[in-house]
Amino acid sequence: MTMAAATPYPQTERTVPTRIPNRGSWDRETVHSILDEGYVCHLGFVRDGAPVVLPTLYARVGDRVYAHGSTGSPALRGARQDSGLPVCLTVTHVDGLVLARSAFHHSINYRSVVVHGTAYQVTDPAERSEALDALVEHIVPGRADDSRRANAKELAATAVIRLDLAEASAKIRTGGPSDDPEDLELPYWSGVLPVIHGYGAPIPADDLNPSIAVPAYLGTR
Amino acid sequence: MTMAAATPYPQTERTVPTRIPNRGSWDRETVHSILDEGYVCHLGFVRDGAPVVLPTLYARVGDRVYAHGSTGSPALRGARQDSGLPVCLTVTHVDGLVLARSAFHHSINYRSVVVHGTAYQVTDPAERSEALDALVEHIVPGRADDSRRANAKELAATAVIRLDLAEASAKIRTGGPSDDPEDLELPYWSGVLPVIHGYGAPIPADDLNPSIAVPAYLGTR
Repeated sequence: MTMAAATPYPQTERTVPTRIPNRGSWDRETVHSILDEGYVCHLGFVRDGAPVVLPTLYARVGDRVYAHGSTGSPALRGARQDSGLPVCLTVTHVDGLVLARSAFHHSINYRSVVVHGTAYQVTDPAERSEALDALVEHIVPGRADDSRRANAKELAATAVIRLDLAEASAKIRTGGPSDDPEDLELPYWSGVLPVIHGYGAPIPADDLNPSIAVPAYLGTR
Repeated sequence: MTMAAATPYPQTERTVPTRIPNRGSWDRETVHSILDEGYVCHLGFVRDGAPVVLPTLYARVGDRVYAHGSTGSPALRGARQDSGLPVCLTVTHVDGLVLARSAFHHSINYRSVVVHGTAYQVTDPAERSEALDALVEHIVPGRADDSRRANAKELAATAVIRLDLAEASAKIRTGGPSDDPEDLELPYWSGVLPVIHGYGAPIPADDLNPSIAVPAYLGTR
């Protein structure tokens, strides 16, 4: 079941920010675009009553997020249960450092998405293949067809979990500092230091056959 | 009490990776250097039995990590209890995309730190001031003295939490792809695409007095 892109995610008790609520968004396209720009999420779950947060690769496919890891990881073991594993999946992009005249109003420009839900292990072979392709394609578009796909042994060693995007929200801060009026004449520089993300020149593997050129899909990043 | 930098953090059940344990490190300097390079952590806690992971600004001071937020945030409310709030604080730096010949061996070069512990609200005024200065200085060294420090009203609206670095570990992946020997002759490019982090030119606030120059501490980043 796919919801129309125009339908926002529902506002729930845990997806409405407790402060600065006007930074919140439940717009599906906004949530998707923030998810699609990243590939490392921070996946939280509860283990022995205590929180655990681990960086994890993920990819969105429609209204689902897939993550993968070793079949031995505690998160993925938990997701193997029929009842699934309650998780919180968070993705954050930092866009700038916001320097106000007052220390209090210093901030960060960012875009984040928080997804609450239950993760389940994916067992259907077709869905597993689709998810693993998406995980490679999400990080480097064009790469799934330009690498050797997983064989049966590798598939058996890989756990894939699925989290439905049902309770998700974005939080966004943009723009310059918001100083109090009485601070505007203070002699401190104020503004935004943009944060830049990019890629350096590809570094070939030591044992790469030198006749194999850097693929075009890396040059366009 | 400050432990000597040479003393590693203890290896506990939850700080020893369940897989690829040789990527783990409990070395104090390694953990500190990874923490010091970042300023946004992902803070996990349990709310109504479910995990919550929120991006949060932090700074390390010795063997403590400070984070701050509104006094209204659920995490900071939880930390206000005498018993504190069990948290997991995770910091991740992505250094490169690792493209192997096989989809299975695709990976990420990264450095991450996971800290398990209990967060407590900081109430001592001197420690609160030190922590707030550290939070500004950690993001932009030189800025604490070049901005207006928080006044009493702002201090009252700011919650500061402290997490002792007692159960902490790093996980690091570096280097090129680790393809299986039988894949080395496959016709796919393999290597690492370095991930670059940097800053763009500072953008002055719209209402900045044009006679105020960009401070030197921004130019050296």
